[in-house]
Amino acid sequence: MTVTPMRRDDAVDTGGARAARLAIRAGAHRGPTAGLAPGYVQGNLAVLPKALAADFLRFCQLNPKPCPLIGLSAPGDGRVPELGEDLDIRTDIPRYRVWKNGELVAEPEDVREFWRDDLVSFVIGCSFSFEEALMADGIEVRHIALGRNVPMYRTSVQTQAAGPFHGPMVVSMRPMSPADAIRAVQITTRFPAVHGAPVHIGKPELIGIRELAKPDYGDAVPVGDDELPVFWACGVTPQSVIATVKPEFCITHYPGSMLVTDRKNSEFAIM
Amino acid sequence: MTVTPMRRDDAVDTGGARAARLAIRAGAHRGPTAGLAPGYVQGNLAVLPKALAADFLRFCQLNPKPCPLIGLSAPGDGRVPELGEDLDIRTDIPRYRVWKNGELVAEPEDVREFWRDDLVSFVIGCSFSFEEALMADGIEVRHIALGRNVPMYRTSVQTQAAGPFHGPMVVSMRPMSPADAIRAVQITTRFPAVHGAPVHIGKPELIGIRELAKPDYGDAVPVGDDELPVFWACGVTPQSVIATVKPEFCITHYPGSMLVTDRKNSEFAIM
Repeated sequence: MTVTPMRRDDAVDTGGARAARLAIRAGAHRGPTAGLAPGYVQGNLAVLPKALAADFLRFCQLNPKPCPLIGLSAPGDGRVPELGEDLDIRTDIPRYRVWKNGELVAEPEDVREFWRDDLVSFVIGCSFSFEEALMADGIEVRHIALGRNVPMYRTSVQTQAAGPFHGPMVVSMRPMSPADAIRAVQITTRFPAVHGAPVHIGKPELIGIRELAKPDYGDAVPVGDDELPVFWACGVTPQSVIATVKPEFCITHYPGSMLVTDRKNSEFAIM
Repeated sequence: MTVTPMRRDDAVDTGGARAARLAIRAGAHRGPTAGLAPGYVQGNLAVLPKALAADFLRFCQLNPKPCPLIGLSAPGDGRVPELGEDLDIRTDIPRYRVWKNGELVAEPEDVREFWRDDLVSFVIGCSFSFEEALMADGIEVRHIALGRNVPMYRTSVQTQAAGPFHGPMVVSMRPMSPADAIRAVQITTRFPAVHGAPVHIGKPELIGIRELAKPDYGDAVPVGDDELPVFWACGVTPQSVIATVKPEFCITHYPGSMLVTDRKNSEFAIM
């Protein structure tokens, strides 16, 4: 199989989440969803057979910072109405990854042909929501300013295990001045459903990160001498944990191609 | 003149703020007020002639983090009823400092004999309130654990000037693990009237502090390799600024001997 390079169609109306989702469903928008439907929550996707769903649900509940669950389907049902009345998990993401026994077997733009009656969909909050709030406050988000993917790192911090699901927490990193780091704690604390407050500040070695310049996922970004690296629990954690379990079947979103929902970021602010 | 060593009378009932204040007024409690009337707000005192009061009030309003004003008297009036119905600035603090033209001229236990009709009293919030909230959350406050005064530093950060009042911000420092530092930002953000969130984390050199082991006021405390120094704007700032102005007359509290008020710390939490 081949990996289609990410690209962004400019024809899409980014004014509304539903419009964006319809464009994705129709194949009119392909590639990354960053910047699509500003103000609306985007989500990470994990689809698992019912036999594993109860354990994975417990895993999310035990690890709300890396795995903030914002949507959950009934078995076999592609709909998640709490995130969008018309939303269909099987068609509404630009690109998917399909896994069998831990092996990547396809990266389709539609998963209807892979669908099964026992599949449960988990939608997990994503940092796009709090990054929007940070930027609205005038805080530079380095990887966005540089047009890169956020740098992510596997840490020495273990998640709380549930059934077969266990493994290290993955974190994303954004460098900031100390004053911005304090402000970022305040801002992201308002958004517990999208990872919430940072899990670590300032000393990467304490959480098992040896070299900031060598992220395990995403792209490196420069960190100034007058800046602190600020770390948030990352939605890649559940994907990384699922990969360890090697479930007989699993669907995830293609990195950067998220589920665009009808929920507003502001709805997720607890105050 | 001699400086009376600080001591704490054990006979005082610390259950209520008013009881503590009456004991102080009667001379039954002398010395530091730390630990007295737990749960009640204590304040820093600055008393200035009316001629300087308008400028100093503006200074406080321009610099709410180091100078959070929680009480203000009418000229010549020793009462500040918003902080305690019976409260009298002239008798209710265990020990005072009286200054003339910037010179310390007395450290009395009562300032009635120094009182003038043109004096305005400013009561400024104090970190005792947020330290109580930090400890209630299980966060170690190092200088309290070690039985020392909090280490304080003059910074390179300038306050906003008002009339003759200007000068560097003074900060207090508490070392914490990165996780506790994040939690401490969340907790102290709730208390803007008592200095609020930290003003700096992690890189003392960026705010002009050369050596953590050599505080400008208070006592040094150890900072572990796995900890970050966390800095809060400090109520010593206004005293340091007033000292620069050398007003013809001024009264402050003796360090550590604060004004015990009837306001509860929890009242000052904005959420």
